[in-house]
Amino acid sequence: MNQKIAIEKKVLSENDRLAKQIRVRLMEHNVIALNLVSSPGSGKTSLLEKTLGALNERLDIALIAGDVQTENDANRLVNAGGKIVRPIVTGGACHLDAKMVGRALEEIDLAAVKILFIENVGNLVCPSSYDLGENMKVVLISATEGDDKPLKYPAMFRRSSVMVVNKIDLIGLSDFDLKRVRENALSINPELKIFEISCRTGEGLESWFDWLLNLSEHLSKT
Amino acid sequence: MNQKIAIEKKVLSENDRLAKQIRVRLMEHNVIALNLVSSPGSGKTSLLEKTLGALNERLDIALIAGDVQTENDANRLVNAGGKIVRPIVTGGACHLDAKMVGRALEEIDLAAVKILFIENVGNLVCPSSYDLGENMKVVLISATEGDDKPLKYPAMFRRSSVMVVNKIDLIGLSDFDLKRVRENALSINPELKIFEISCRTGEGLESWFDWLLNLSEHLSKT
Repeated sequence: MNQKIAIEKKVLSENDRLAKQIRVRLMEHNVIALNLVSSPGSGKTSLLEKTLGALNERLDIALIAGDVQTENDANRLVNAGGKIVRPIVTGGACHLDAKMVGRALEEIDLAAVKILFIENVGNLVCPSSYDLGENMKVVLISATEGDDKPLKYPAMFRRSSVMVVNKIDLIGLSDFDLKRVRENALSINPELKIFEISCRTGEGLESWFDWLLNLSEHLSKT
Repeated sequence: MNQKIAIEKKVLSENDRLAKQIRVRLMEHNVIALNLVSSPGSGKTSLLEKTLGALNERLDIALIAGDVQTENDANRLVNAGGKIVRPIVTGGACHLDAKMVGRALEEIDLAAVKILFIENVGNLVCPSSYDLGENMKVVLISATEGDDKPLKYPAMFRRSSVMVVNKIDLIGLSDFDLKRVRENALSINPELKIFEISCRTGEGLESWFDWLLNLSEHLSKT
């Protein structure tokens, strides 16, 4: 298996090289990039739909929507008002990589963009290893998934800067405990910023929107 | 990337070779093996806990519980009455492979086993490519995940023989549509056998238990 490990290292270092190029390019255009990661069905697309609904007129938002198959997510984002939406269909691959994102970025006029959301493939393992040139990873977890997920998939929670707990309207319908998920996540990554939201009821979304606006002001174009 | 693809092919064909050995070994002992796959948090462990609760006295059940990190799932299965439980901690790998399963099987007396559940890592992509020597893959999807998952992760649904829709007690609290998930799944794989259950309320579990009992009778030890 040593040959496999050597190849994987090579692939990852090539990915890191491309990610660095992307990071420089985004910085030159003062674009903030957030890489959204989660299990399938945690609500990445729903969160982006809500974000577009609230901030589309106030922020210049671009979105890259990655999926193994179908462009369902990208279509949902266009329907939600997304003006700049690029789908990436990985055709089987379990994560986005910097090469795919770099190619998608070629079709986006970065001068017109303030914040870029990259919606990764739904997968709590593999996307953690692939830097896409983002400023930070945002990991979503839904309140129906079990509060031990940060312990079971530690790499993803360690490499994320933000955790969004979605579907909090469903708390009480399972044994998911909000306090426990917070403790578990912070035991893996004490720096993690945490939002608790429900895309269905809207609860908690205001602070997510405020945080995004604040973020974009700090890095506002001059 | 051609070198990467060549290596991947080699890894998969080596995996297939080991999986074949496992399949023969399981057949020689008249053991039925089910490979449970799903997103993180769809309820694989919960389903196995319920299955142990109902069938532990009537069937000789062995369980292999795979996880990226922690032995939480294996511990839950032991607490639920599992007599033969082997954890596999993949230490970062996003799926089980035949080598890991083969090693776990060395510690199990197959003569005393009728049905073997292999709980894979929570991941709807990578585990689809790795044959573990099982008789069939059982894919779980929870009613909070979105009914387009079979279209978005087609390989997993194509390679599974059974789909279990879990958390149906939460239907109505999202826009998940049971009819639509059935149609989507069957459009990918018309042969798919479907169960609709709730591990929380117990709804639908009887037919899952009956099916398992029936399966084990057909392959009963002589």
